[in-house]
Amino acid sequence: MPNLISSSPPVSGLRPRADESIAARMARSAAAADGAMMRTADFDTWFARRRAAHHFQVDRIPFDRLDDWGFAPQTGNLGHRSGRFFTVEGMHVSLERGQRGEWTQPIIRQPEVGVLGILVKEIDGVLHWLMQAKMEPGNVNLMQLSPTVQATRSNYTRVHRGQAVKYLDYFVRDDRRVLADVLQSEHGAWFLRKCNRNMIVEVVDDVPLEPDFCWLTFGQISELLHRDNLVNMDARTVLACAPVIGDRPADGAVGTAMAVALARSREPGAGALHSDAQLLSWLTAERSRQDVTVRTLPLRDLPGWRHLPSVIEHAGGAGFRVVAVSVRADNREVARWTQPLIEPLGAGTMAFLVREFGGVLHVLVNARVEAGLLDTVELAPTVQHVPGELVAEPPEFLDTVLTAGPDRLLYQAVHSEEGGRFLAAQSRYLLVEADGALASPDEPPGYRWATPAQLSWLAQHGHYLNVQARTLLACLNALPGRA
Amino acid sequence: MPNLISSSPPVSGLRPRADESIAARMARSAAAADGAMMRTADFDTWFARRRAAHHFQVDRIPFDRLDDWGFAPQTGNLGHRSGRFFTVEGMHVSLERGQRGEWTQPIIRQPEVGVLGILVKEIDGVLHWLMQAKMEPGNVNLMQLSPTVQATRSNYTRVHRGQAVKYLDYFVRDDRRVLADVLQSEHGAWFLRKCNRNMIVEVVDDVPLEPDFCWLTFGQISELLHRDNLVNMDARTVLACAPVIGDRPADGAVGTAMAVALARSREPGAGALHSDAQLLSWLTAERSRQDVTVRTLPLRDLPGWRHLPSVIEHAGGAGFRVVAVSVRADNREVARWTQPLIEPLGAGTMAFLVREFGGVLHVLVNARVEAGLLDTVELAPTVQHVPGELVAEPPEFLDTVLTAGPDRLLYQAVHSEEGGRFLAAQSRYLLVEADGALASPDEPPGYRWATPAQLSWLAQHGHYLNVQARTLLACLNALPGRA
Repeated sequence: MPNLISSSPPVSGLRPRADESIAARMARSAAAADGAMMRTADFDTWFARRRAAHHFQVDRIPFDRLDDWGFAPQTGNLGHRSGRFFTVEGMHVSLERGQRGEWTQPIIRQPEVGVLGILVKEIDGVLHWLMQAKMEPGNVNLMQLSPTVQATRSNYTRVHRGQAVKYLDYFVRDDRRVLADVLQSEHGAWFLRKCNRNMIVEVVDDVPLEPDFCWLTFGQISELLHRDNLVNMDARTVLACAPVIGDRPADGAVGTAMAVALARSREPGAGALHSDAQLLSWLTAERSRQDVTVRTLPLRDLPGWRHLPSVIEHAGGAGFRVVAVSVRADNREVARWTQPLIEPLGAGTMAFLVREFGGVLHVLVNARVEAGLLDTVELAPTVQHVPGELVAEPPEFLDTVLTAGPDRLLYQAVHSEEGGRFLAAQSRYLLVEADGALASPDEPPGYRWATPAQLSWLAQHGHYLNVQARTLLACLNALPGRA
Repeated sequence: MPNLISSSPPVSGLRPRADESIAARMARSAAAADGAMMRTADFDTWFARRRAAHHFQVDRIPFDRLDDWGFAPQTGNLGHRSGRFFTVEGMHVSLERGQRGEWTQPIIRQPEVGVLGILVKEIDGVLHWLMQAKMEPGNVNLMQLSPTVQATRSNYTRVHRGQAVKYLDYFVRDDRRVLADVLQSEHGAWFLRKCNRNMIVEVVDDVPLEPDFCWLTFGQISELLHRDNLVNMDARTVLACAPVIGDRPADGAVGTAMAVALARSREPGAGALHSDAQLLSWLTAERSRQDVTVRTLPLRDLPGWRHLPSVIEHAGGAGFRVVAVSVRADNREVARWTQPLIEPLGAGTMAFLVREFGGVLHVLVNARVEAGLLDTVELAPTVQHVPGELVAEPPEFLDTVLTAGPDRLLYQAVHSEEGGRFLAAQSRYLLVEADGALASPDEPPGYRWATPAQLSWLAQHGHYLNVQARTLLACLNALPGRA
């Protein structure tokens, strides 16, 4: 089934200027409010047409109506008959050998590494990003804007046997021109040591355009990132791995203090409160002092959890439960399937507190323990809160961000978490200007002020920024600075 | 027991010149063949005196003569009565769900993160490194040259309660001036997800000199790194995390082609065969394609292994066994103790193949699966071989490095692996010029040419260079380049 032949006209583009830095090219794409291939004003019509072109239906079902999925006789773990995809198992977490607390919970184990990739191409001198209108069963609105490719390892390592993932070949061929390629963690509260390969690959050849895909500038995507439940988690995490955005062309307007500080933070050599070495040293110290023991357990008889016909839920009211759904779709590799999903019982709040030091914008990062993370601690938003979630620390600064007046909100939107594994998991993402009480650079234990450029630098490597922090970094990069 | 008060005169030094790069300061220290505090010619006498000043004795004992250590009733795991230090457990490893093979072995689990730290100080305008003459029971010659500090987590998180680790305070105080601070993996064949904090901290205050310690320049340490079994593993891994060494002052001599290529590789912007982004992308791809499943098992009845009174050994002749020793020492925190050790049954061979591309020195790194590594794959030497070791891949290039003539050996020395956990574990470390047959830049699968500067860049982060590759990086940095 060859899929690189299309009836759409191929896109042609200029070769990138060899002497131009990627930061400058990113800045030009960010400054482009309209694209060469689709005007922003036309996006909604196009997206509505893609939605109308397909039929999707998702229904809750009891576990005994799952096809090919079942509870293993010995362990009670929920898995697929093939042994592939993922399993839902039990996990026991102990902090400082139980002294600071311990709990049990179901957890998704998915050892395979997938590819989340965005293809970029210079068109009329501006980098455009190839985005996909894609359905995921867990999304409240089903279809969202996704990366060019979301592929499992089984797909992308067996390319030579023929595969059905569009554009995948651009990401696996040896002469790929890589702007980012890094293994990043996903939700440490619900996944056991899951990571995906986040890739941004530039192409100079002509690229055929498939029906569910569109080329957008970084500026257009930034505009869409302000909408609720539109840019999906996979797209956001890949966008966060983009090379640091250079100085955008000033539009002559004098901005607010925060917009000026944001613009300053994008200048080369913008001063950070803590040097890169100091920031890494602090994170190393935070990791070293943690003593978290994680064991997997059989899902059967997991203490504190009860198995009902349609849900596995916590007797004491943890923040999520395990459910099952049936999915019908006419444009996916398989037209009908069933699967388990994790369903959080409340909407999350994810926020960076933001302020300037020396005229340069900084965000307050938290070195956060998440039991499912491979390296236990990664940098998280200032506030990362899902009601009832089982975590190592109580939420700090939650009231601060929930009660901030509109004049302090640099950004807010509701985004969906991974729609392929989580059902109706939504979080409000916020960038909140810190008030006077937080203006001191004496950070509380576990928190540090860092610049967006430092976060972009860390995002080039794995194990540093958790998936919620990466979403907020993508949102930060979507904000216009004004000198 | 205050230990920062000494009868030795305190060292005084100039403050570092604020406008001088760390690379230039490292280069000056590397070029200093003699130190302000100890002449290299006097080192042997000093070291022999330190050895003579202490009495050490290590004896093999049967397991039932271990004090406070024992086999747990249920699991047969070998642990300390206190629950601290480490345990010896069983591990099952499966490659691609058993398709490429599987095995079981004992493994050391030591969840606590220790500190390996070297204090550096500018004396008479040259950075000096504070090294320690320290005994470890597993070392063939017991005493070796160690970092300023080797401390367990229990030590360094309880500093306020008073502790006996000399100089530790310099590494944990908030205003430390950090040159490196990174969690690095240790032997993935014998440790389960073990990492230690590798620190280099610069001090400008006066520092009292304790009897078992000496200040050496990087040039002096480089000279000592050419000796067999002198610079211990902990020192080598910390040295490898040093900031990249800048151009050393040329001595007028025209060097060999390799020495010229090494000097070139230390110049800013020296060209690498693969860009940093390409190198990371290749490693990400290597990690993504691996499918390694690691489970811990009870040590009792571990398939293929037999428990004798004094050893736990593999019935089929794996490359190591578990033993127990009794230790007497007069200058350690505890004067007598017993403990288990891992004893390899043969000496290892660790080698980088080396060649130049575009006049710049490169080494051939291998993306190697090691079951005990947290992230499964790290960059390893071209050849990493311990006879009988249980590994994912057969050794490649072993004959090439073992049969290389002396004209191709840029470096060779025998070094000890971690003497606190391994008994008489020695490896020959080699830097071998590649011959014509390997001169093609078309690397075999799993291998890539990288510059020493790229390795130093990666060593600033965890999960990239394994402990054997870090030793070889320290050896590379110890070689003089000649322009």
